[in-house]
Amino acid sequence: MTVELVKHSATDADVAAAARVSTLGGATRVKDASNQGLINYLVRDRHGSPFEHTSFTFYIEAPIFVAREFFRHRAGWSYNEESGRYRELQPVFYVPADGRPLRQVGKPAAYTFELGTYKQHMAVTGDIRRISQEAYSTYKRLLDLDVAREVARMVLPVNIYTSFYATCNARSLMHFLSLRTTSEYAKYPSFPQQEIEMVASRMEDDFILEMPLTWAAFAENGRVAP
Amino acid sequence: MTVELVKHSATDADVAAAARVSTLGGATRVKDASNQGLINYLVRDRHGSPFEHTSFTFYIEAPIFVAREFFRHRAGWSYNEESGRYRELQPVFYVPADGRPLRQVGKPAAYTFELGTYKQHMAVTGDIRRISQEAYSTYKRLLDLDVAREVARMVLPVNIYTSFYATCNARSLMHFLSLRTTSEYAKYPSFPQQEIEMVASRMEDDFILEMPLTWAAFAENGRVAP
Amino acid sequence: MTVELVKHSATDADVAAAARVSTLGGATRVKDASNQGLINYLVRDRHGSPFEHTSFTFYIEAPIFVAREFFRHRAGWSYNEESGRYRELQPVFYVPADGRPLRQVGKPAAYTFELGTYKQHMAVTGDIRRISQEAYSTYKRLLDLDVAREVARMVLPVNIYTSFYATCNARSLMHFLSLRTTSEYAKYPSFPQQEIEMVASRMEDDFILEMPLTWAAFAENGRVAP
Amino acid sequence: MTVELVKHSATDADVAAAARVSTLGGATRVKDASNQGLINYLVRDRHGSPFEHTSFTFYIEAPIFVAREFFRHRAGWSYNEESGRYRELQPVFYVPADGRPLRQVGKPAAYTFELGTYKQHMAVTGDIRRISQEAYSTYKRLLDLDVAREVARMVLPVNIYTSFYATCNARSLMHFLSLRTTSEYAKYPSFPQQEIEMVASRMEDDFILEMPLTWAAFAENGRVAP
Repeated sequence: MTVELVKHSATDADVAAAARVSTLGGATRVKDASNQGLINYLVRDRHGSPFEHTSFTFYIEAPIFVAREFFRHRAGWSYNEESGRYRELQPVFYVPADGRPLRQVGKPAAYTFELGTYKQHMAVTGDIRRISQEAYSTYKRLLDLDVAREVARMVLPVNIYTSFYATCNARSLMHFLSLRTTSEYAKYPSFPQQEIEMVASRMEDDFILEMPLTWAAFAENGRVAP
Repeated sequence: MTVELVKHSATDADVAAAARVSTLGGATRVKDASNQGLINYLVRDRHGSPFEHTSFTFYIEAPIFVAREFFRHRAGWSYNEESGRYRELQPVFYVPADGRPLRQVGKPAAYTFELGTYKQHMAVTGDIRRISQEAYSTYKRLLDLDVAREVARMVLPVNIYTSFYATCNARSLMHFLSLRTTSEYAKYPSFPQQEIEMVASRMEDDFILEMPLTWAAFAENGRVAP
Repeated sequence: MTVELVKHSATDADVAAAARVSTLGGATRVKDASNQGLINYLVRDRHGSPFEHTSFTFYIEAPIFVAREFFRHRAGWSYNEESGRYRELQPVFYVPADGRPLRQVGKPAAYTFELGTYKQHMAVTGDIRRISQEAYSTYKRLLDLDVAREVARMVLPVNIYTSFYATCNARSLMHFLSLRTTSEYAKYPSFPQQEIEMVASRMEDDFILEMPLTWAAFAENGRVAP
Repeated sequence: MTVELVKHSATDADVAAAARVSTLGGATRVKDASNQGLINYLVRDRHGSPFEHTSFTFYIEAPIFVAREFFRHRAGWSYNEESGRYRELQPVFYVPADGRPLRQVGKPAAYTFELGTYKQHMAVTGDIRRISQEAYSTYKRLLDLDVAREVARMVLPVNIYTSFYATCNARSLMHFLSLRTTSEYAKYPSFPQQEIEMVASRMEDDFILEMPLTWAAFAENGRVAP
């Protein structure tokens, strides 16, 4: 999968400046070491709006089943995605790697995963490759018959890759991370599918670099978005 | 496809009452024949907020490729969808009916469609049925091997049906209809895929019944959402 | 102040039905005693989207300084308000009642309030009445001189009443209540101004009546919106 | 009034790149002279989402009656404002300048304005100054009596200045400009109060500089936001 931070306008100082307008007005713009305490307070007591004056634009390549979960995040997110109607999709399919746990144990919303047997791994990777190839061959055959792309694509499985731009702010990003990553320090349980967590983790890496104080406050306060 | 209006709280009088609070305050609640002129004025001059004090909840069954387009509508929409992680998906697949145009002519954003030859129809319906069956058999085989649903479903094509609740207001519904239906009276061109237009048309039928004055104003003003 | 639930489409069963579509699909619509456990789980583990398939429309009369705080709630809220440009505002002003605490002690975001002395009460109510009357007389005088309402209203203080419709869903309502009411059971501290809490409390009364299971889950889980 | 573009991440090339992902996927990133035609097409046919991958943060000082209209823009906007509860407000009040039209002629939603007589100007500026001073003296007197700021501020008129940060994207900015500015080239009529148009015009100056192709497409297509 590909996760690239295309551009951003997002610093811890942006958050602090926006927060201070409420108590100081705009005349005084304090940008100093005291940002850390302020930002931790904002996250802890759930004052979310100062985090919205920031912007991250990611370019992402991921399978359709990941994109479908991703696009359910609406508030504070903007999207533009590759279209199966307007372009011919490329034969790039997601196949689980060796270490991908395959067995799910327990009840919904309380699953744990286990690695799976060798037989399961063979079946999964073999079947996914086979269906992907058959589906793509059929797709190409229909295109060769001059069938519209929007019709031919109906045979393609949800593990085919798509690509999209996603723009968010630090508040909507933290909300996304709280639901799409797991952590033993999280106050609320989350059960993301491993594949979207792979995307989310790469996004979190960029978040840590650009807004270290905000990320630290998020991590230290149970990974609850303010 | 299934489109069912599960519940709603949406009348033309709701719109008129909300609009009149700006000029009359709340004390006077006029509910009379003059609603028609008021509502037409609101749509024509694009005063959209009075239309937001209404609510429609639909239950929809449609293929994944339709749901993916549907969920791109964010502002004023709420969704809950069947999960391929939490339940075993049923073997219901979309196959284009006889009259579905199959050939696309022209450039992106200016397509027209033609019916397609008999050979194309045979290829499309045959291939879609075949891949759907193969994919579903493989899905079931992986489940029988105790592979997690979230992994096994990766082989399923985007024409498998999903089900979801979608809640919107009259303003977000008109915006959806302006993009996902076609009409010779539309001021702006739209090029929806036929399958989402089938869903949108059924939703428009319910809209006409519940809010006839609002629908008429929408139709008479070029199908531009206020 | 006036808070009237004008209309609504909101039951606990709506939430349960929307939540169950993810695990059961739409075919099975369970509406039974088990809703309570499901709804409590949704609130506790912060699954908010099922609560969005509900709608409450309130008609509210409150001073401008309350409306200003109210309208900061954006996600899931729609508004239409009386206009000082399009109608002549009425001489109705908010004056604190006898029991309104007047002294604030402590630091921002950690205020406590004390009742205030007799002298303070006399000064506050006397001054507010005096300025309100002078401002309104001036407003009327300017209108009599044929000055535009939008100019004349510049002299009016923020304690003059305005009226508006506000539509929300159960999720956005819980978020509002978590910030605009106080409770010893709240997990996160909130410091609403007393006047907006008066409005919020009346809204909560309606919420309790219409969605008792959802409200109970909200109350028992630290008044944190899912 | 003060309007300062504090920071931004917004270019015409951002829009073009986001739009092209739908037809080209992400692999090919074309950034050339052809952006102009593409952007004009996007505005003309109302494809709004590519414009959302941009961000503008403004710092604004304006009277409360302007801020109240401003904050009604919700979709794609984020705000943080100076608080009358947490800080002592400064004695800065808006008084209409000599050229401000004072008489409104015609019906709601079709007003025209005329300059007003000398007598009207004297009354307006005199009364506004007088009430502003009296209200502020009263405010200070109540603060000196140790009355809480949130109570004392109730006497202050809506022409007192407030300050706030506002963050938006190019799409929400165009929507704002379409409603809060006037132009003989506008396809839809708008009747903004002159004071918010002063703010909007300054914001439009920044928009022109940063995104000249997008602004030109907006201007040439009737100032309708895509």
